[in-house]
Amino acid sequence: MARKDMLIRNCWYVAGWSYQFSTDKPVQRMLLGEPVAIWRSGDGAIVVMEDRCVHRLAPLSLGRIEGNQIRCMYHGLRFNAAGRCTQIPGQEIIPATACVRTYPVVERNDWVWVWMGDPERADPSRIAQSKALDDPRWVLKTGELHYQANYELINDNLLDLTHLAYVHATSFGAGPAWAESRPKVEAIAEGVRSSRWIIRTPPVPPLGKAADHQLVDIWTSYDFVLPGVFLLYTGIFPAGTAERCRNAAPPDDLPTLFANFTSQAVTPTSATTTSYYYSWGPAAEHGDEQMAQAMIDVATGAFLEDKLMIEAQQRIIDCAPDARPMPTSADKAITIFSRLMRSQDSEAVWITKQRTETTLTD
Amino acid sequence: MARKDMLIRNCWYVAGWSYQFSTDKPVQRMLLGEPVAIWRSGDGAIVVMEDRCVHRLAPLSLGRIEGNQIRCMYHGLRFNAAGRCTQIPGQEIIPATACVRTYPVVERNDWVWVWMGDPERADPSRIAQSKALDDPRWVLKTGELHYQANYELINDNLLDLTHLAYVHATSFGAGPAWAESRPKVEAIAEGVRSSRWIIRTPPVPPLGKAADHQLVDIWTSYDFVLPGVFLLYTGIFPAGTAERCRNAAPPDDLPTLFANFTSQAVTPTSATTTSYYYSWGPAAEHGDEQMAQAMIDVATGAFLEDKLMIEAQQRIIDCAPDARPMPTSADKAITIFSRLMRSQDSEAVWITKQRTETTLTD
Amino acid sequence: MARKDMLIRNCWYVAGWSYQFSTDKPVQRMLLGEPVAIWRSGDGAIVVMEDRCVHRLAPLSLGRIEGNQIRCMYHGLRFNAAGRCTQIPGQEIIPATACVRTYPVVERNDWVWVWMGDPERADPSRIAQSKALDDPRWVLKTGELHYQANYELINDNLLDLTHLAYVHATSFGAGPAWAESRPKVEAIAEGVRSSRWIIRTPPVPPLGKAADHQLVDIWTSYDFVLPGVFLLYTGIFPAGTAERCRNAAPPDDLPTLFANFTSQAVTPTSATTTSYYYSWGPAAEHGDEQMAQAMIDVATGAFLEDKLMIEAQQRIIDCAPDARPMPTSADKAITIFSRLMRSQDSEAVWITKQRTETTLTD
Repeated sequence: MARKDMLIRNCWYVAGWSYQFSTDKPVQRMLLGEPVAIWRSGDGAIVVMEDRCVHRLAPLSLGRIEGNQIRCMYHGLRFNAAGRCTQIPGQEIIPATACVRTYPVVERNDWVWVWMGDPERADPSRIAQSKALDDPRWVLKTGELHYQANYELINDNLLDLTHLAYVHATSFGAGPAWAESRPKVEAIAEGVRSSRWIIRTPPVPPLGKAADHQLVDIWTSYDFVLPGVFLLYTGIFPAGTAERCRNAAPPDDLPTLFANFTSQAVTPTSATTTSYYYSWGPAAEHGDEQMAQAMIDVATGAFLEDKLMIEAQQRIIDCAPDARPMPTSADKAITIFSRLMRSQDSEAVWITKQRTETTLTD
Repeated sequence: MARKDMLIRNCWYVAGWSYQFSTDKPVQRMLLGEPVAIWRSGDGAIVVMEDRCVHRLAPLSLGRIEGNQIRCMYHGLRFNAAGRCTQIPGQEIIPATACVRTYPVVERNDWVWVWMGDPERADPSRIAQSKALDDPRWVLKTGELHYQANYELINDNLLDLTHLAYVHATSFGAGPAWAESRPKVEAIAEGVRSSRWIIRTPPVPPLGKAADHQLVDIWTSYDFVLPGVFLLYTGIFPAGTAERCRNAAPPDDLPTLFANFTSQAVTPTSATTTSYYYSWGPAAEHGDEQMAQAMIDVATGAFLEDKLMIEAQQRIIDCAPDARPMPTSADKAITIFSRLMRSQDSEAVWITKQRTETTLTD
Repeated sequence: MARKDMLIRNCWYVAGWSYQFSTDKPVQRMLLGEPVAIWRSGDGAIVVMEDRCVHRLAPLSLGRIEGNQIRCMYHGLRFNAAGRCTQIPGQEIIPATACVRTYPVVERNDWVWVWMGDPERADPSRIAQSKALDDPRWVLKTGELHYQANYELINDNLLDLTHLAYVHATSFGAGPAWAESRPKVEAIAEGVRSSRWIIRTPPVPPLGKAADHQLVDIWTSYDFVLPGVFLLYTGIFPAGTAERCRNAAPPDDLPTLFANFTSQAVTPTSATTTSYYYSWGPAAEHGDEQMAQAMIDVATGAFLEDKLMIEAQQRIIDCAPDARPMPTSADKAITIFSRLMRSQDSEAVWITKQRTETTLTD
């Protein structure tokens, strides 16, 4: 019996950073195993198209942007931003079928969000609440990684931060409390929220105003929402704050010693590969560009630790695709999110992976 | 439904240049997915053999040429040029079945032509009329490229020169007329002929006697014949010549300002890889070795532009193998040749490519 | 029809040299396509475990050895040397099913022998009689190679030394007698024995006391035993000795001019890849460390000649998996051993290799 992987179509996926796409030349991205050409028309509007000319199936991402149109640079067919062919060199009649598919796209908070499913259902209000790079409350830097692994393994990683105590003990300076106690986990609209206090712990850099404190209480709370967007707030407070808050969320107006925010997007480029886009940085009142750069460098180092583990995990899974994980009490968020994913079934593409047929003869 | 690719068996395929094969050591080539060992016996005659010793299936291309015979250098079996085993070291009896298949082969015009199909039908008169490297009318240089793409994509490229105006606008200096008007296309024996005048166009180097002309008329005519041989003549004439010829072919004896000829062979090494052998150069009266070298260097640069496009096109096709091209009026030659290819069905090997089974659950 | 390959489960496989495994960190090895983590507990005992944490299937080979236990460094589950989970951080109850498989393992003569089959049948008396690196009779050095080829092709190579006359004529200085005459081949317990005299041949370095002899008689005898262990003794004697021994084995106490011994293990890491571990060296009375090093360097060079041939042979086989070898009289040992292997059927995993479906339409 083959393992089944799943790709959800009716979701907004992050295809990259706004600054990665220009009017100069189109860019190819893979989304759910499908190549798309992303480019800006002369008026700056972003366009996401099936990356396949109707004529002989050459990639439009090797094409040339001409004002608000794009020309295939194999035999010269030209298409407008709606995907309709507007010129076939040397031929007067253009068939009505000479169209390439375009995808609903929204630029929001410096990410390019693409809807790969039914265009009728593309509702921008479902786009996750990531932070813009110029949000005045935060100083944010960006990064990206590309995985040789199925995206659900990366989702699982972000939905169970127990791993911080092992994978990132040094890089993030995460203590054993991350593994030994459990966060509060609750279902939210299109996702799951996980919140916790880490109490009476020595602060690790960057410190901000926490530099004068030997022990602090740390409040972390993240939302993980469809299709795979991780939004984490961390606030550091004087030791004793958690107790005063009765272990609930601190009031919004409670001053922090240091706060930071990270937005992270997990995008399945195919069933076996994934792109990962992220920003991170301190609250503007606690840090500057230099600190933000230091933080994103540490984060990238930590994410490479994840990548090493997750790609190795993927290879182990590929060796025995029928092996099933054994949930622990740390997997509550994974379970909620996986159930939410599978409830999207009617919108999903199921992928049956090919693998070598092995039969035990006895 | 899987896409079907096709390999025609009963054709003469170019396996390389005559000068690439010697009595020193055998060479392995792949033809239609089958490994062959090519070598010269002591008398200089070329031999093409199944590259698989009957004994333990080791490649004979790692063997040693001994006069008119070849010895497998794994366990020492020796075969004559007809493929019959003539020695098994340490064993007196040689089974009658100890034979490797040999393939009909002809050296003509510096190409080695191999017949991969029914030997009974191997008729050398079907070999395409390429130019010999020592043809006194031309000064020719050679090149080769190896593609990660199905050969039909390269055939299609050569059968529709519309692409010159886009892919090779700079390298070959091809003007928009290549895309905006249509050549005369006609079926010929085992192929298709495409001819045209490009009129009142500025000449591009190499110029020959065209250097003194601001505008010229260019006559180009190529035959593309089974299995994938492209034979192109280009003649440059003073502006007005096309009109004087009433847009028909110029008389053979009409003097040219500059003329050149190229022979190109597309050989499927497997269903997904292709070798490409070509020569090009000026008429002897218009150019020398140095000019021929400059021309082949430009051609190789242009063919690398094709390779970039075609290999990208192949990857796009692999992402969605059921997508079908939409023909334009520029595809007339492709359509004729494709029909000719498919009429060879009864001689073809059909290849059903494996691909991941994807099912839309809704 | 697809070719079937076979992996025997109920055998002792060499997973590496004892010195390659420590209490510092676990090592991943592939055996029969299954990843295992090999490590030493604090008391030095070697442990071989399924390389897959029960929790989320991460590799334990990326884990941390803690005394006699190992901790998965993804989410911190800890296992004892018997594979039982002894800690799930943050969770009190440990399910009885929280176990990873362990494999019977024996360290003997500096090799780590792993039993991949039914643990009930893991009988250490079936382990092949290789030489320890500190065996006082021999001075031995070690090497290893990793093949992109099915292990049976390497077994076949070792079971038919005819190839010495062709593949290793220079490296080992093997003469034509290796191909022109046949050894005595006999079935032994779990294997095959092949013995022969090579008579009146010039000795090749290293020479030992043979340096004074223009011609010598060489006695070679090897056992090749399940699953793929090659144990070869070579003794060099004054010319005429073979005759005096009536071509039978020389008496054990007959002094040699020079003697050497090699132990070699062929381990299928998957159906398409193989590891190869070997030691070689002179008798202590005839050579020193320096000579042993020279011998292992020559051996590694020769084995790279085999690797070139065998990996090319594998690629030829992959091109036409249904082609069958044609046995010669040199294949007697191969035939005996293959029959022995196939008699283990009820313990075997059969692997049907996937390959492209090709249909001849006519």
